[in-house]
Amino acid sequence: MRRIAAALALIPLIAAAPAAKPKTPSEIVAAAPRADWREIPADDLLVFELRGGKKVVMQLAPAFAPVHVANIRALARGGWWNGASIYRVQDNYVVQWGNNESTKPFPAGVVAKPPAEYHRARKGLLITPLGSPDAYAPAAGFAGGWPVAYDPRAGTANLAHCYAMVGVGRDLSPDTGSGGELYAVIGHAPRHLDRNIAVVARVIEGIDRLSALPRGTEALGFYKDESMHVPISAVRLGSEIPAGARPAFQYMDTQSASFGAYLKARANRKDDFFIRPAGGVDLCNAAVPVRKKPA
Amino acid sequence: MRRIAAALALIPLIAAAPAAKPKTPSEIVAAAPRADWREIPADDLLVFELRGGKKVVMQLAPAFAPVHVANIRALARGGWWNGASIYRVQDNYVVQWGNNESTKPFPAGVVAKPPAEYHRARKGLLITPLGSPDAYAPAAGFAGGWPVAYDPRAGTANLAHCYAMVGVGRDLSPDTGSGGELYAVIGHAPRHLDRNIAVVARVIEGIDRLSALPRGTEALGFYKDESMHVPISAVRLGSEIPAGARPAFQYMDTQSASFGAYLKARANRKDDFFIRPAGGVDLCNAAVPVRKKPA
Repeated sequence: MRRIAAALALIPLIAAAPAAKPKTPSEIVAAAPRADWREIPADDLLVFELRGGKKVVMQLAPAFAPVHVANIRALARGGWWNGASIYRVQDNYVVQWGNNESTKPFPAGVVAKPPAEYHRARKGLLITPLGSPDAYAPAAGFAGGWPVAYDPRAGTANLAHCYAMVGVGRDLSPDTGSGGELYAVIGHAPRHLDRNIAVVARVIEGIDRLSALPRGTEALGFYKDESMHVPISAVRLGSEIPAGARPAFQYMDTQSASFGAYLKARANRKDDFFIRPAGGVDLCNAAVPVRKKPA
Repeated sequence: MRRIAAALALIPLIAAAPAAKPKTPSEIVAAAPRADWREIPADDLLVFELRGGKKVVMQLAPAFAPVHVANIRALARGGWWNGASIYRVQDNYVVQWGNNESTKPFPAGVVAKPPAEYHRARKGLLITPLGSPDAYAPAAGFAGGWPVAYDPRAGTANLAHCYAMVGVGRDLSPDTGSGGELYAVIGHAPRHLDRNIAVVARVIEGIDRLSALPRGTEALGFYKDESMHVPISAVRLGSEIPAGARPAFQYMDTQSASFGAYLKARANRKDDFFIRPAGGVDLCNAAVPVRKKPA
């Protein structure tokens, strides 16, 4: 199939390139030195086990929503999600899950009404600018391994609703959501939700176990009946898992030279397939590289 | 479930609102007068029938890639896709299908090497500007019902790789693809492909029949073996289908007052759920409304 070869060219495989050729984003990631990667702390990993034992791993973002993240840790430690399920899959939007928050009491340590952690002070963040315009904020970039939008005048910054990012379901304001009901983005970034919801995490492994689920047929992608719900058998923090079985991940330091080169290459694709590099890139099209910790 | 109610607020249902409230995007679409909708010609509809009889309907874009679109019409009329299959599903990227172009001869009328229809003259297009910055082009907007990026200085315009847009697989340049192998976008818009590939259509019904398919496990989302391929049983133009069974769709006139109001509302969400409207919107987050023709 000639077109299979053509399709392969759509995203070139990692391969040794002649010295004269510009490196592809994948080649830059593969060549990044150990010093350009940061460990994800075990207490920032949240491991969901779906029916059948398949896992979805998330990285929590305590620097952006500390009270919501503390709640999520307490919910995991208290086993609150045992028996939870995925009950909503809306195409090009979100997958959502939870555990009947209105009737199941929270474990100790959960703050029932957290503050509205929808943005934070820009101060204290080292931001690598995206270098391309953003439709939703005065500026965009990357801080501590996360995609952020920010407002230099207001001095605020917020996590962006990019693909695979995880937010907290809430009722109408002033409700801010506890963290018990969460959603992951599975479509074109719904950035209009930025600064309106607490963004608390991103899926770093197994997003396709959410994004390929059957879409719900009711309004907003809710499943028609409980027989379609996808059970979640267990949710644990990385720090609760015995050392031998504990997952270990790293993200690329967004202040590193490797990330700078990666970002530039994402904005200027020069692989053999491309005839016109864009000269720019969307915040959500330059996903921060994450990998399993090498042995 | 309290959070089900919360989730419902994520995209408000179409509902009667008090007069003082700003209309939601959905309310604007529902209230758009008949005069603000345009019929899609039957010869611009391409109906894929998947195994089991489920359909995926596409709208062709002859104003942007006339030779490729003429090829696609000739391939459909010649029954060339009968026995074709979906063989690639890459998460957050594309679904791709075709029919072994290298061994199956084309029907009469197919141009084997079409011109590189990757952009066109801006002249002749009535463009409604997006009103927000774009990371990939000097300007973006909507023309003839389609999302476009354009360069006022160069005088060019191109279809944008938004969610559900369909492009033509090709080999390395100077190959431009015949139209026999096609892909649909199922993730965050891969706009770096803009101006590098012929964009020829968009999925207007049944995108979830593509986006929820199991992801391929091989590099770039190719299915590991043919047993995973999804057979396409028939592909027909709307104009080939008997009048009684022929699908009929309309898109919102992107020059209409309704579209202007819709675009403004997408950029300034003021539904009860939102506490901070963004004041901007991404080109691919203001999908042109398409509906079945009302009876």
